Amino acid sequence: MNRRGFLFASGGLSLSPLLPQNSSESEAAAKDVTRTLARYIVGAKPSDLPAAVRKEAARTLLNWMGCAVGGSRHETVGIAISALAPFSGPAQAGILGRKERFDILHAALINGISSHVLDYDDTHSHNIIHPAGPVISAILALSEHRPVSGNDFVNAVVLGVDVECRIGNSVYPKHYDAGWHITGTAGVFGAAAASGKLLGLTEQQMLWALGLAATQPVGLQEMFGSMTKSFHPGRAAQNGLTAALLASKGFTSSEQSLEAKYGWVNVVSTAHNYNDITGKLGQAFEISKNTYKPFASGVVMHPTIDGCIQLRNENKLAAGNIDRVELRVHPLVIQLTSKKSPQTGLEGKFSIYHAASVALVEGGGGIDQFSDRAVRDRAVASLRDRVSTVVDSSLHEDQVRITLTTKDGRHLEKFIEHAVGSLAHPMSDKDLETKFTGLTSGVLTADRQRKLMDLCWGVGGLGQAKEVAQAAAL
Amino acid sequence: MNRRGFLFASGGLSLSPLLPQNSSESEAAAKDVTRTLARYIVGAKPSDLPAAVRKEAARTLLNWMGCAVGGSRHETVGIAISALAPFSGPAQAGILGRKERFDILHAALINGISSHVLDYDDTHSHNIIHPAGPVISAILALSEHRPVSGNDFVNAVVLGVDVECRIGNSVYPKHYDAGWHITGTAGVFGAAAASGKLLGLTEQQMLWALGLAATQPVGLQEMFGSMTKSFHPGRAAQNGLTAALLASKGFTSSEQSLEAKYGWVNVVSTAHNYNDITGKLGQAFEISKNTYKPFASGVVMHPTIDGCIQLRNENKLAAGNIDRVELRVHPLVIQLTSKKSPQTGLEGKFSIYHAASVALVEGGGGIDQFSDRAVRDRAVASLRDRVSTVVDSSLHEDQVRITLTTKDGRHLEKFIEHAVGSLAHPMSDKDLETKFTGLTSGVLTADRQRKLMDLCWGVGGLGQAKEVAQAAAL
Repeated sequence: MNRRGFLFASGGLSLSPLLPQNSSESEAAAKDVTRTLARYIVGAKPSDLPAAVRKEAARTLLNWMGCAVGGSRHETVGIAISALAPFSGPAQAGILGRKERFDILHAALINGISSHVLDYDDTHSHNIIHPAGPVISAILALSEHRPVSGNDFVNAVVLGVDVECRIGNSVYPKHYDAGWHITGTAGVFGAAAASGKLLGLTEQQMLWALGLAATQPVGLQEMFGSMTKSFHPGRAAQNGLTAALLASKGFTSSEQSLEAKYGWVNVVSTAHNYNDITGKLGQAFEISKNTYKPFASGVVMHPTIDGCIQLRNENKLAAGNIDRVELRVHPLVIQLTSKKSPQTGLEGKFSIYHAASVALVEGGGGIDQFSDRAVRDRAVASLRDRVSTVVDSSLHEDQVRITLTTKDGRHLEKFIEHAVGSLAHPMSDKDLETKFTGLTSGVLTADRQRKLMDLCWGVGGLGQAKEVAQAAAL
Repeated sequence: MNRRGFLFASGGLSLSPLLPQNSSESEAAAKDVTRTLARYIVGAKPSDLPAAVRKEAARTLLNWMGCAVGGSRHETVGIAISALAPFSGPAQAGILGRKERFDILHAALINGISSHVLDYDDTHSHNIIHPAGPVISAILALSEHRPVSGNDFVNAVVLGVDVECRIGNSVYPKHYDAGWHITGTAGVFGAAAASGKLLGLTEQQMLWALGLAATQPVGLQEMFGSMTKSFHPGRAAQNGLTAALLASKGFTSSEQSLEAKYGWVNVVSTAHNYNDITGKLGQAFEISKNTYKPFASGVVMHPTIDGCIQLRNENKLAAGNIDRVELRVHPLVIQLTSKKSPQTGLEGKFSIYHAASVALVEGGGGIDQFSDRAVRDRAVASLRDRVSTVVDSSLHEDQVRITLTTKDGRHLEKFIEHAVGSLAHPMSDKDLETKFTGLTSGVLTADRQRKLMDLCWGVGGLGQAKEVAQAAAL
């Protein structure tokens, strides 16, 4: 009897069996990966969630909602609406921060775009998935179409985030290094799982929903810096919701869509660990590793922004007195954010040079610092040309070593171990409210802001989760 | 000066330069792959098409239409409609062979499913893409929403097939061997290009449309044998049409979505040849290599079916007198069709064992031979268990060597070099009409069948291409 057979036949260690950890052993455990996951999703109850996990779901919702409402006026969202409105179905679900109402599939897409377009949404601390976009965009729209209690909504948020992040973990970083935008490619599973849970899918149907999700990965990193980046979580939400709806009516798919030879894991990645998917189900919750950005850009630039703001404030630096800046960073930072001369705010979000410059010149890293205005600002552009980078593989992704030389000959250094907003220095509830208020102030009145924040904090106790969506639409 | 520099600077061989063929040299040509393709699509005129190419477009349309109308009553289509109808937009486009009308995005999806669900549609002879599904499903729906002349429609069919098959060629077979269903992953480009052409996109917009297509590949081979396989061309059509619609309103994307480091080609394949995409544009047309199935299954099984039918007829074989059958085949045949004991008609389409058995027992390979009835037939199942395979890498994909032993001790052999329906033995126009009539006889009256065939043959001269769609809906 092999090890796996022993573990499953023995039955004694049922709560937390010592599942295989390394790759060759996880191959042996490959047989039932998708089914194990589907069975867990179908059986998971809201009452099984620890209080801290429920709380993190509310934080995730609040942060996502602020981003979606704040992003709703972005040109990207307006273009998507104008292009797709002629083909939308009934007015089933609201577009957050706006007056339009679309069918739930289009609402999931558009709200997903809004929530990511500012690059200000949540980030899983291990796999850099933006977890809320695919999941909440899908199920908030669904909750406007059929009754969903706040309690079930919270459970679905936790499950959806768990599924997409577990699957993401199983192939990270090889899958990401290959060029996939993991938020779209793994996110579609989270959207399918969460939507399927709220649709009451059977285990068989959930297997099919995961299969339909697997066959619709969205997102290449080449799209970073264009409107298409924010399309990824939106489309993942729409695709996952579509998968669950089809499965609910009996549309068949693979039952081993993750682990099969030509299934998702093997096709999109050269390495994997299935234990990341099926280990400690119901005991460890990936949403506990979610983080929320203090700055409106990709998270790999946050240590640099944090460090530059600290240097500026501690040394009372004026832009005119900075000669040059050198950044020593992990290779991934250069892989993702190497745009030397960004021309738009969106491109600025993928320029470590712009990030350092604008943080030093303006002392911030908010939406205004990643706008078209900021990338074209003369002082920012001038200093940007004097920012250089050195790839240093000895650094972690969270770290940066900044060396700044002033025109009067001083050499200043700053080392950041973990940026503000990271799991080590998390945003407080108050920080999240401040961010939410800043994001939504141009869209919602103060009364509406307060009401919406309270609904997010208290979502688990709502009779109908759609109250949240209704409070966020105009 | 390197070879590429020489070729381009010399200018003398401009019509058909000896473009680099191997991978490292094609890397040097990578810079403008997507732009070159976009420029060609935008500039291509119907009047540039050779008559034989226009004729092949009509054959492709006729064959696709028969499959879509014939497939429209399949359970798969009914389930998709019941799941998605509540979310459809205005009744803009018809569902072929049925009474429902949906918005053009849903119509593209559903008609794409119908056209592939019987596995009876067209197959490109080199890359085994099913070219019509993604392209025609998208543009036929679009032609019901805005005026499209038959002449422009034919041009868009040719362009769409050209784009998806050129891109498919560039990564075939590595991309396919990795487990992707190339009809969905490359097909989305064809749908975007053809739709974008009919929407009148500029070169800039066409680049964005191709970028939005690149980021939405659909289809894992693991889905073969389930309803999700036919979802692939339908979703590719819908995704490509969505890409073109978004781009037409200014939704930005990458401008190097094919050749960039983290673009489509490098992310989805370990090998490529960019000259397959940009070589001989406007001179060689991939639709000329399209083929049409005489049998209702994946094309890799056709040599076996053809050979078994011939053996049966030439030797007047009765099922009861066959002892065993051995098939020597190319490895791909086993990769794709190794289901030993199919339980449904859909699974039977992926069983070389069933294909051989049913062809010997019933003398055919039509829809009825790949039905639930046929896979459960006692005589077919019995002989199926006595079919064995031998992988023989010395054979081409088109070839099969069949050795049959009868119960009275005879040894019969049949070698097939190219099956009926292949490019070497193409279906005649009359064959296509016979196939069309068989497929649609349960759905359309004889008058409607004749009218629809005539509209397909004469599509290039129609004032409005939508006449074809209208004649095919109930």
